[in-house]
Amino acid sequence: MRPSGRAFDQLRDIVFEPGFSRHAEGSCLARFGNTHVLCTATVETKVPAWLKGKGKGWVTAEYGMLPRATNQRTDREAARGKQSGRTQEIQRLIGRSLRAIVDLAALGETQILIDCDVIQADGGTRTAAITGSYIALYQACEHLKKIGALKKEALTGSVAAVSCGLYKGAAVLDLDYDEDSNAEADANFVMTGAGGLIEVQGTAEQSPFTEDQFAELMRLAKMGIAHLIAQQKRALGA
Amino acid sequence: MRPSGRAFDQLRDIVFEPGFSRHAEGSCLARFGNTHVLCTATVETKVPAWLKGKGKGWVTAEYGMLPRATNQRTDREAARGKQSGRTQEIQRLIGRSLRAIVDLAALGETQILIDCDVIQADGGTRTAAITGSYIALYQACEHLKKIGALKKEALTGSVAAVSCGLYKGAAVLDLDYDEDSNAEADANFVMTGAGGLIEVQGTAEQSPFTEDQFAELMRLAKMGIAHLIAQQKRALGA
Amino acid sequence: MRPSGRAFDQLRDIVFEPGFSRHAEGSCLARFGNTHVLCTATVETKVPAWLKGKGKGWVTAEYGMLPRATNQRTDREAARGKQSGRTQEIQRLIGRSLRAIVDLAALGETQILIDCDVIQADGGTRTAAITGSYIALYQACEHLKKIGALKKEALTGSVAAVSCGLYKGAAVLDLDYDEDSNAEADANFVMTGAGGLIEVQGTAEQSPFTEDQFAELMRLAKMGIAHLIAQQKRALGA
Amino acid sequence: MRPSGRAFDQLRDIVFEPGFSRHAEGSCLARFGNTHVLCTATVETKVPAWLKGKGKGWVTAEYGMLPRATNQRTDREAARGKQSGRTQEIQRLIGRSLRAIVDLAALGETQILIDCDVIQADGGTRTAAITGSYIALYQACEHLKKIGALKKEALTGSVAAVSCGLYKGAAVLDLDYDEDSNAEADANFVMTGAGGLIEVQGTAEQSPFTEDQFAELMRLAKMGIAHLIAQQKRALGA
Amino acid sequence: MRPSGRAFDQLRDIVFEPGFSRHAEGSCLARFGNTHVLCTATVETKVPAWLKGKGKGWVTAEYGMLPRATNQRTDREAARGKQSGRTQEIQRLIGRSLRAIVDLAALGETQILIDCDVIQADGGTRTAAITGSYIALYQACEHLKKIGALKKEALTGSVAAVSCGLYKGAAVLDLDYDEDSNAEADANFVMTGAGGLIEVQGTAEQSPFTEDQFAELMRLAKMGIAHLIAQQKRALGA
Amino acid sequence: MRPSGRAFDQLRDIVFEPGFSRHAEGSCLARFGNTHVLCTATVETKVPAWLKGKGKGWVTAEYGMLPRATNQRTDREAARGKQSGRTQEIQRLIGRSLRAIVDLAALGETQILIDCDVIQADGGTRTAAITGSYIALYQACEHLKKIGALKKEALTGSVAAVSCGLYKGAAVLDLDYDEDSNAEADANFVMTGAGGLIEVQGTAEQSPFTEDQFAELMRLAKMGIAHLIAQQKRALGA
Repeated sequence: MRPSGRAFDQLRDIVFEPGFSRHAEGSCLARFGNTHVLCTATVETKVPAWLKGKGKGWVTAEYGMLPRATNQRTDREAARGKQSGRTQEIQRLIGRSLRAIVDLAALGETQILIDCDVIQADGGTRTAAITGSYIALYQACEHLKKIGALKKEALTGSVAAVSCGLYKGAAVLDLDYDEDSNAEADANFVMTGAGGLIEVQGTAEQSPFTEDQFAELMRLAKMGIAHLIAQQKRALGA
Repeated sequence: MRPSGRAFDQLRDIVFEPGFSRHAEGSCLARFGNTHVLCTATVETKVPAWLKGKGKGWVTAEYGMLPRATNQRTDREAARGKQSGRTQEIQRLIGRSLRAIVDLAALGETQILIDCDVIQADGGTRTAAITGSYIALYQACEHLKKIGALKKEALTGSVAAVSCGLYKGAAVLDLDYDEDSNAEADANFVMTGAGGLIEVQGTAEQSPFTEDQFAELMRLAKMGIAHLIAQQKRALGA
Repeated sequence: MRPSGRAFDQLRDIVFEPGFSRHAEGSCLARFGNTHVLCTATVETKVPAWLKGKGKGWVTAEYGMLPRATNQRTDREAARGKQSGRTQEIQRLIGRSLRAIVDLAALGETQILIDCDVIQADGGTRTAAITGSYIALYQACEHLKKIGALKKEALTGSVAAVSCGLYKGAAVLDLDYDEDSNAEADANFVMTGAGGLIEVQGTAEQSPFTEDQFAELMRLAKMGIAHLIAQQKRALGA
Repeated sequence: MRPSGRAFDQLRDIVFEPGFSRHAEGSCLARFGNTHVLCTATVETKVPAWLKGKGKGWVTAEYGMLPRATNQRTDREAARGKQSGRTQEIQRLIGRSLRAIVDLAALGETQILIDCDVIQADGGTRTAAITGSYIALYQACEHLKKIGALKKEALTGSVAAVSCGLYKGAAVLDLDYDEDSNAEADANFVMTGAGGLIEVQGTAEQSPFTEDQFAELMRLAKMGIAHLIAQQKRALGA
Repeated sequence: MRPSGRAFDQLRDIVFEPGFSRHAEGSCLARFGNTHVLCTATVETKVPAWLKGKGKGWVTAEYGMLPRATNQRTDREAARGKQSGRTQEIQRLIGRSLRAIVDLAALGETQILIDCDVIQADGGTRTAAITGSYIALYQACEHLKKIGALKKEALTGSVAAVSCGLYKGAAVLDLDYDEDSNAEADANFVMTGAGGLIEVQGTAEQSPFTEDQFAELMRLAKMGIAHLIAQQKRALGA
Repeated sequence: MRPSGRAFDQLRDIVFEPGFSRHAEGSCLARFGNTHVLCTATVETKVPAWLKGKGKGWVTAEYGMLPRATNQRTDREAARGKQSGRTQEIQRLIGRSLRAIVDLAALGETQILIDCDVIQADGGTRTAAITGSYIALYQACEHLKKIGALKKEALTGSVAAVSCGLYKGAAVLDLDYDEDSNAEADANFVMTGAGGLIEVQGTAEQSPFTEDQFAELMRLAKMGIAHLIAQQKRALGA
């Protein structure tokens, strides 16, 4: 029995609010239950120094968490003067996941910078961030089309992510904080709308897991991601 | 004529959402028109090193702005590795303003840490932050009473803040970004519910202003703050 | 009765030593009693990145305090690796105050960088810094004229600053450290030679103050600043 | 055909030099072909603050790369003043991987700090680091036994890691730099001597990969890790 | 011929102003010609962590330079967020030089922290800093005696420093900036009042120098330091 | 009697391994007994900003120590976020020593960056670093000749360094850690192959030393450096 009463293969209530931000070229407030992540996309007419003059664009991401998004307050990274290893790991993952569905050459020398800020946390912030960022990124590309800055389609597909884990011996989908902090193993999957794998990350928290267990987690993830992809489409009216 | 069409002495639409945060001991989403600031209060059973053993508490604040809260994205302070001078100035102001209505001895060796995070900015973030923080602080004190950690009333009053400015020669109340960036002078006022002055800050942006002009700004501020104080009360059901 | 024996409306002994520094384009050691601030002006033939190509100049300031300028040694900011919020707040104030009397277009693409370093502190370092910086700035502009780098007058007026406060219930002028650390309220005023207000900052230290009290502080400040402006003129032989 | 001429399921030449360091309680120079990583284990009689008084120990890791370990020199992180996101991600992975085979309670309040420094890099530094660190950790535990500081066995198994990838469409084992920088996908696997999975990380570099491809990578990894585990044993004379 | 017209073995005008600082337990403004360094000594009733409980004291130093102490402004280290290698090298030298004449056991668990701040620079700031710091240190020890905190004499001697160099082929004493920036070699010597060597640092700036040349520099230094020691005594009325 | 049993004028076993690094343009692992320093030379087709356009090159150095190179682990500087004063002092010394034998004009606008990383430490790491760096620098210059990037000879000589000290009253050559940490005085000498002095640094550790003692240290150093220069030649087959 899961603490939330959900079925083992049941996602939390998923809500996307595209266009949440008044200022950004693309944005989405992504809610996975009590986990709320604000994703914005900023279009910049410059690329990183090492890409200059190559006619290609870039997509990158930054991640942050409001200090009291969590049950115990965490130090403000701006006040501490540096981002934690966890923060950097997550923002690298978000950027990598989004670039996997972008035709960087189609962007031209344009950068899309995704900001994912966790307003409230209850587990699975990175997967909510990736899933919501796709919507912000989609809107930013639509914006570029509208202003004639995009010659051809920049997105080669859609992307969504979900976590799974072994909780009291059973494979469960979309862990919340209670489950996450007690799981024997947890895994994050990032997949395309077409079902391709982009990122697979599994970690044993207490004891090693088996190949069969891992396969079961992947099975759940595929199912969950299919739901998320469908919901992204509805939110975008696409 | 103001860009927003408001009367010169008209506040923007003010909305307070107390208890916005699931985790914090006190919280409020304060909306001054399109300026949205999330204020949370965290109770900590420790005080700064220099206060230890003196039997007194402390109230302090941190301030941040989501990178794309603004029309032009601003760098993430956590990524740059330091808080700007502006950020530090604002968070010092918030802390000072709140401490002015707190009986620190009544708190005992407890610290209340206020986090003000700007989700969306349209001018006046510091005044919205102070005004919303009072509600979060109030809730945190109620929480302390409920758990028996507060022997006597810690709050000696209420506090709210508003900006005023000279815009196209006229004194106007509660500047939005359009006005703020074109004002001849702007001023922030922090006052108690009883009408006492806590902070007065006036700055000439283009040319010096006169005492009479300043007096007019203060008059507007008193009026605006009276409205804000009334609305805080309603929001708190007090 | 003030600890120093001064009358309530009496400034400390004020001494300006223009040209104190052998190397700088403009300089002044400003002494307000035992508060000694060295102000230097450095002319740079560059402007901040965001001003480039606009044909305008800039005036900015940095502030520091020798570690043992104070009675209790304060940490060296260079060793701690960052400037405190107080330092940043003060240097922003100095820069803003000076820019209010400068015609930036007249400067052309030239920056004047003011360094204010507190050699000894006894309260009122920011007001001494602003007042002394005007003299350094004046000299730097004279230097620019001499070398033919200034087509027209860059200064539109003069500027000086002073603090006032409520001490044992009475409004007093130009607080020293003893008074400052026990004041019920203190305020800093920055005004032009022509009597215009540039900055007004009042803070309740213990309990809120009234409008009448604030008006009394402003009255004292006007008087004190008039004296300072006169003394600046004498020091500059102007 | 692989650039190195290796068979698709062939490891590079693997050499472990246990006890490489004169000073450390445990150490190993791990060579995976031209990738050389020096791993040392330092025993500390303290634990992180959050573990104090709980009677448990900790294992953590730090990772670094000599600036000219690579073909293009990389900036020295100590000179830049911060560790890159990549560095932090790797050192978190190493620590997590080792803790998975340690009985932290058996350690008592002792910390073992693993330093992994890349002397020369040719791809796969993180997997070489994990594999070599196990040997350093083993020696440190033997040292603790010898001095009577370990009541019972602290290691619950052994651990090794290897990378696999899709290179020109084929699944290959233990990528070197040439392959790594041209792979369609790459994955790192961390497994125990008993065959359990500790970490699984797969990343699409160019286009998404399929479940079948991923399964093939895992198959190769299991084989490679079995070889590495055997060689660790020989090196330790165990 | 030296640019200043001094004889090759002639010091600049040396002036010591003991007790320059109103707040510090010891202080001296040391002027070597146009090089002016303010040295203060702060007595702290604590020692560095690694000395705690050993019944011994410590003497350490920090060094800084006002940004416009030099002809070309140098960046403010507090603003850049770190001390330069040169700064750290100098402050380590000052601390080491002073500790060589202090009986740390006699101090008990007391630290004397020396701050050397260059108000104006014209070459030789580190030697002026060491020589002036001795006076500040002496005063601090006298202060400790007066308050009964020093059981026995903590100073085992006096210390002074001077630079020498090869300028246009000739050995000269006490280089100013003009000479320093054109010297073929320069050397700093720190010696005790009794003539013992504490620090010897010689550096070839353009081409190697010979042992004979170095011996000649040392001869000049001995002579110069004897003068400085005599002047320190007079300044201290000792 | 020295702890190592060496004669007072005996170097440790000296081994140079030129070309140790697979990637660098020049490299050498320098072993002075148990002190092992890896020196690499990186050729960069850029110079520091202040040298641009002057047609001259630059040679600079960075120094680091693996955390467990020492008997007690030292904190990783990359993790602490800054280089210690000692590190900066050493890398400045290495750069200065090498530049003394380089014709910077002959280099053209090329920079050679030397990295010295201490793999294992047993005293004298800075002198081993300088001596080994010469070999790396020599190889880098040979490389530049081979590719036709060097019009004329850039090296004007060779350079080596050694430490000496007063240990139990006697002057000894090439101190190891045991001696270094108990020496009454220690000195580092950097000399050219032609016998010229480049750097002389002597420090009293416990009590001042005399000129005669210093002369004796210099005599030993000359002898030791002559041996090192001969061995460099053999290692380079020159």
